[in-house]
Amino acid sequence: MTYRSGRHFLQLPGPTNTPDRILRAIARPVIDHRGPEFAELGLRVLGAMKWIFKTEETVFIYPSSATGAWEAALTNTLSPGDHVLLCEHGFFGVKWGRVAERLGLQVERVQGDWRMGAAAASVGERLADDDVGRIKAVLVVHNETSTGVTTRIPPIRRAMDDAGHGALLMVDAVSSLGAIDLRHDEWGIDVSVSGSQKGLMLPPGLSFTAVSRRALEASAAATLPGSYWSWADMEEFNDRGFFPYTPATNLLFGLAEAAEMLEEEGLERVFARHGRHAAATRLAVERWGLENVAVDPDEYSSAATSVFVPEGTSADHLRSVILERFDMSLGKGLGQLEGRVFRIGHLGDLNDLMLAGTLAGVEMGLRAAGIPHRAGGAQAACDWLADNPLEA
Amino acid sequence: MTYRSGRHFLQLPGPTNTPDRILRAIARPVIDHRGPEFAELGLRVLGAMKWIFKTEETVFIYPSSATGAWEAALTNTLSPGDHVLLCEHGFFGVKWGRVAERLGLQVERVQGDWRMGAAAASVGERLADDDVGRIKAVLVVHNETSTGVTTRIPPIRRAMDDAGHGALLMVDAVSSLGAIDLRHDEWGIDVSVSGSQKGLMLPPGLSFTAVSRRALEASAAATLPGSYWSWADMEEFNDRGFFPYTPATNLLFGLAEAAEMLEEEGLERVFARHGRHAAATRLAVERWGLENVAVDPDEYSSAATSVFVPEGTSADHLRSVILERFDMSLGKGLGQLEGRVFRIGHLGDLNDLMLAGTLAGVEMGLRAAGIPHRAGGAQAACDWLADNPLEA
Amino acid sequence: MTYRSGRHFLQLPGPTNTPDRILRAIARPVIDHRGPEFAELGLRVLGAMKWIFKTEETVFIYPSSATGAWEAALTNTLSPGDHVLLCEHGFFGVKWGRVAERLGLQVERVQGDWRMGAAAASVGERLADDDVGRIKAVLVVHNETSTGVTTRIPPIRRAMDDAGHGALLMVDAVSSLGAIDLRHDEWGIDVSVSGSQKGLMLPPGLSFTAVSRRALEASAAATLPGSYWSWADMEEFNDRGFFPYTPATNLLFGLAEAAEMLEEEGLERVFARHGRHAAATRLAVERWGLENVAVDPDEYSSAATSVFVPEGTSADHLRSVILERFDMSLGKGLGQLEGRVFRIGHLGDLNDLMLAGTLAGVEMGLRAAGIPHRAGGAQAACDWLADNPLEA
Amino acid sequence: MTYRSGRHFLQLPGPTNTPDRILRAIARPVIDHRGPEFAELGLRVLGAMKWIFKTEETVFIYPSSATGAWEAALTNTLSPGDHVLLCEHGFFGVKWGRVAERLGLQVERVQGDWRMGAAAASVGERLADDDVGRIKAVLVVHNETSTGVTTRIPPIRRAMDDAGHGALLMVDAVSSLGAIDLRHDEWGIDVSVSGSQKGLMLPPGLSFTAVSRRALEASAAATLPGSYWSWADMEEFNDRGFFPYTPATNLLFGLAEAAEMLEEEGLERVFARHGRHAAATRLAVERWGLENVAVDPDEYSSAATSVFVPEGTSADHLRSVILERFDMSLGKGLGQLEGRVFRIGHLGDLNDLMLAGTLAGVEMGLRAAGIPHRAGGAQAACDWLADNPLEA
Repeated sequence: MTYRSGRHFLQLPGPTNTPDRILRAIARPVIDHRGPEFAELGLRVLGAMKWIFKTEETVFIYPSSATGAWEAALTNTLSPGDHVLLCEHGFFGVKWGRVAERLGLQVERVQGDWRMGAAAASVGERLADDDVGRIKAVLVVHNETSTGVTTRIPPIRRAMDDAGHGALLMVDAVSSLGAIDLRHDEWGIDVSVSGSQKGLMLPPGLSFTAVSRRALEASAAATLPGSYWSWADMEEFNDRGFFPYTPATNLLFGLAEAAEMLEEEGLERVFARHGRHAAATRLAVERWGLENVAVDPDEYSSAATSVFVPEGTSADHLRSVILERFDMSLGKGLGQLEGRVFRIGHLGDLNDLMLAGTLAGVEMGLRAAGIPHRAGGAQAACDWLADNPLEA
Repeated sequence: MTYRSGRHFLQLPGPTNTPDRILRAIARPVIDHRGPEFAELGLRVLGAMKWIFKTEETVFIYPSSATGAWEAALTNTLSPGDHVLLCEHGFFGVKWGRVAERLGLQVERVQGDWRMGAAAASVGERLADDDVGRIKAVLVVHNETSTGVTTRIPPIRRAMDDAGHGALLMVDAVSSLGAIDLRHDEWGIDVSVSGSQKGLMLPPGLSFTAVSRRALEASAAATLPGSYWSWADMEEFNDRGFFPYTPATNLLFGLAEAAEMLEEEGLERVFARHGRHAAATRLAVERWGLENVAVDPDEYSSAATSVFVPEGTSADHLRSVILERFDMSLGKGLGQLEGRVFRIGHLGDLNDLMLAGTLAGVEMGLRAAGIPHRAGGAQAACDWLADNPLEA
Repeated sequence: MTYRSGRHFLQLPGPTNTPDRILRAIARPVIDHRGPEFAELGLRVLGAMKWIFKTEETVFIYPSSATGAWEAALTNTLSPGDHVLLCEHGFFGVKWGRVAERLGLQVERVQGDWRMGAAAASVGERLADDDVGRIKAVLVVHNETSTGVTTRIPPIRRAMDDAGHGALLMVDAVSSLGAIDLRHDEWGIDVSVSGSQKGLMLPPGLSFTAVSRRALEASAAATLPGSYWSWADMEEFNDRGFFPYTPATNLLFGLAEAAEMLEEEGLERVFARHGRHAAATRLAVERWGLENVAVDPDEYSSAATSVFVPEGTSADHLRSVILERFDMSLGKGLGQLEGRVFRIGHLGDLNDLMLAGTLAGVEMGLRAAGIPHRAGGAQAACDWLADNPLEA
Repeated sequence: MTYRSGRHFLQLPGPTNTPDRILRAIARPVIDHRGPEFAELGLRVLGAMKWIFKTEETVFIYPSSATGAWEAALTNTLSPGDHVLLCEHGFFGVKWGRVAERLGLQVERVQGDWRMGAAAASVGERLADDDVGRIKAVLVVHNETSTGVTTRIPPIRRAMDDAGHGALLMVDAVSSLGAIDLRHDEWGIDVSVSGSQKGLMLPPGLSFTAVSRRALEASAAATLPGSYWSWADMEEFNDRGFFPYTPATNLLFGLAEAAEMLEEEGLERVFARHGRHAAATRLAVERWGLENVAVDPDEYSSAATSVFVPEGTSADHLRSVILERFDMSLGKGLGQLEGRVFRIGHLGDLNDLMLAGTLAGVEMGLRAAGIPHRAGGAQAACDWLADNPLEA
């Protein structure tokens, strides 16, 4: 083994850099998941997750990857053959659709441009056409991790309401939760889905569904088979702080610590920090003369920025040069963007100098890989950061 | 908060005491689950799990509780309405059966005495009767964590073979793997199911299925819906050390460390150690004049011992006294044994003095709780341990 | 390497078992020892140490082993050729005397029986004889770690006062601090010396001197050369939370955590816990038919018990059997007790079941090593512990 | 408490950023410092330190700050009133001289320009004048942490040899060891002094002396009093891997890990890495139009760069802006450089992106603090790093 000096820069759009406090928290000895100490932990994290989702309703926590929570959202609320309307404008939307199909659902798609967010108007039209109420749920990804595009959820909700349609609104908040404002209750979301390894700064292995009363009611009638994801089982145990089967105790230790950190910093301040780092990143990209995948400033993601490499060059080659030479992991282009795009994660536990190192690493990589660009992007971003402190 | 001096004794039949080496391993910073460093880790743990399951076939690793792997075994191999034959002689068998039913399977049961293992003869008879091949799988729990009864698997396999029946043999090895000898290939098991928080000494959050070629073939035709548990998806990624969705990286760090520890100690020596500690525990129980749930010496569990409290006394009261006074967690009686039984876990990362402390704690608890018993059980166990070293 | 399952029992009279909380605390990333975050830490630990020493006066913290604090006590207050009166009734007293001699001091000795504490009367006589005030300091070990004998300090102070002698009273509190009541101010101690790895539950590497105003005044006139141990340098920096040279930051993180734990449990309760565990240990020793080194019940140590093995047997052989077979470290016989004595540490982070394991380990070791003894010592201790809970 | 997102940049010339591997290593439970497991550790670290010092002779390890090792070098080899010749060209030289004086030595000084290294010619002249051999030791700081000036040691040795003078050559290698090539044997050094918290990447709390045979021989005749620092005591124990008093076990765990990391990377490669990062840093400084304290390119330090702020501005204000706004700790100006200089540590566990973040942080700080400078220093450094990879 060859030791590489210095700390790896994990600048994926998740998993994100895990802060020391969380690493120490998950290293606590395991405790009895049926004992009183656990009950306190369970109540603590379930309560904290409601605060983070901005909901007074119910949050369920699974020992699983976020992919599992996609499945949980569907199996708890729907029945075989049910139709769902999927807003598809990025790789993770595509994948959620595939999960729905494999579970035996009929997936109707609102195909969108991958450089734009979900179009509320199209959703409204489709629902207006569905006067028999065939569509049981609308699926939309809040922050498309593959493109760095954030869809505004309230217009979708309004379109659904305007169409007078009773479908459930399900939102993938995997890479937005804890990084970009998400208001489960205020925005009228029925099921919000998320995971631990993004804005929550944890290792992967926990997933979440925030669930409205309507969605809970729908679950009584739903007949898609399932057991592991059962909300009903969870409800039976959660009010005392317990779980129906052995939970991922040590990740829950980490979640309690993450909640404390978010409380200390303050959620709104966390969002502002992410917004500021995203703005600096876009300044760098612009200066390099590269193209942001996202095209609408109202949809720029605070969590991640996806960047096209010039025609004729390879984003994956760039990423491998950067990994090899500068010990930084960047996200790869996914689906139709494979090879053409690299993705810079700027969410989670990050500060100005980590971002400065990140952007310098991208620029050094462009230079080392011989990819045409204008120099000075990292410098421009840093100048801007110096001139624009986060307000207290 | 009041600090309690000293280390908690986590003597459940799982989760078990997590060794420091593993706690430090899971506290490593998260890495890119799509990068070359992860690939090495992935190949390492997938290979190690084959060694631990004693299989040359395939092992899949899930970011989930072991309950999820029950579901994985079923959804990958079976179709709606399929019949399965469940050997039910303990709480976890009952629960696996319920999972099967919720997935839409028809569960036929070989009801057994909870103080005994699964009866191979009964399995053989049921299969012999099924000349139309309605039964697609036989489900048996290797080590019933609720009773401390270990079923011998080879006679079950022989009974199936003798009946000339083609059902798959599925074994719950949750609390046996890494503690009690399990030979996936040699014993002709089709699907072995396990989890991380028992003999593997990890926190909960990982589950496993070891899968025979026949089971893999069956999965091609199976139509139970599912996505998260899909073996086919796993197969696509595992050969390069990757996973179809974000894995629980930090628990995998721990798994690599656990594998190294098991390799250092040697699997057979690990089993011998567990056997010796179980024997000492039974000596203590006998001396106390209490009754072991397990009645057949060939079925005594090396992983856990379940003990009846005398009529008219409460096992749960005893457990709460022991927790309060002696900071030790014991397992509770489950299902039909609730309140009548407490369970001593003696698996995972344990040595003679930890067991001595455990048994002393039980005896002190019996005394403090005023439960009738003969003194000297812990002493008898220790005398025996002193006189009977583990052979090199 | 061969992995040994289970946790090592570190039952030395120090270093003691380090609790997880402290291990996690010392694993925090290093911080700038001249920055504001450090200042808070520095003030916190300096204040906490005053609370632990029960002093309103001054405590100095060194990055060194406790041996260094012996040197600090002497070099700061004395001048070449000064006489000190050493109460020598154990190995650590002998060693402190040697340090004094090497520093150029004249060491007069009150030779005591190693099975007894320092004799106040003898101290009084010697001082009464010294009408020219040749003796500048009286040196006494509070808890002789080598013998398990605790000297009562107040009678020594009274004897000094009664003799009307102005010598400084210096007390080695290395293995008593945080385990046995020590009242620096109330008992009129001038310099108390201690270290981190005993009752404070930390790894070794920090030492302490608690210093009275008189000792500080004496330091102005003292001419023994020295720089590293200089109180004057420390005083210049400590009031702002800093140190004159780079401190052992990570051990200070641990010290802050230890202080929090002691605060949570309560010092008096900590002492009561140690007293109860010591009593249980002596019961076991008595039952085994072995002989405690300490002979006066008023001088029994709450921190450690030293035990003679029967004539013709080897304590070191016993210790090696126990280490090899039962993975427990016990203290060896030191100085004139070498080979004849083993020492059981029961201080620091300990609970009833850890002590039960410890005593069982000693008894199993006696049995395995073939050392004549009566069985049942561990049992007797546990029965007593069950019947005698620590009062709330 | 307010959580600050992201990792602190600890860019002092020590303590340096502590890598995770070392933090995990020091979090291992304490072991018996007199047992066989410790013996292995002791031999391992003593051997490793010889490799790092490039000596076949003897290395001693103290549980102390590096300041203590200054004292150890002197008290072991010298007698009261002995003369030492101190090369004083920076703050740490001044401090070592004060330690010598407090120990009762006569300190003769070769006063040097703080912007230059020690002048071999002046040393030679002074020794040539000393025909009575009054001077017993020459004291020189290899890398002046206060100025970023590295003195070439071989010319000093040659000057001593040319003068035919028998003084011992003592070298402070505190901030050079593990960062800048130091060849104890080849360069004819008699005592090299160092500490843990710089190039060795550990927390503070360990110090070292590497000792030639001549120095060891000198120690037999030396009469400065002392006990804690005694080489003779160490020698008695070290050959079996033990220490004369309780060592700082957990920092030794970390030292073993650090040695492994240095072995993996390779010492020469470590030095080259530091040299490259120092060069990039100087490029930035030059571009900013600021002035490096060091003036002779042959004496530029690979470990740290000290930089003058423009007349009329305050380096300490700059540092506080950088700490407050960008969460980075820089070194302050010391002694005659107080307020006029800030110091950038670029030693220890560092990589290109951490350095990029560091330099960006300095530049952002200059900008935010309104200190006149030319923009583009960080950019220039990064461009150069991209174009000049470290050769394999």
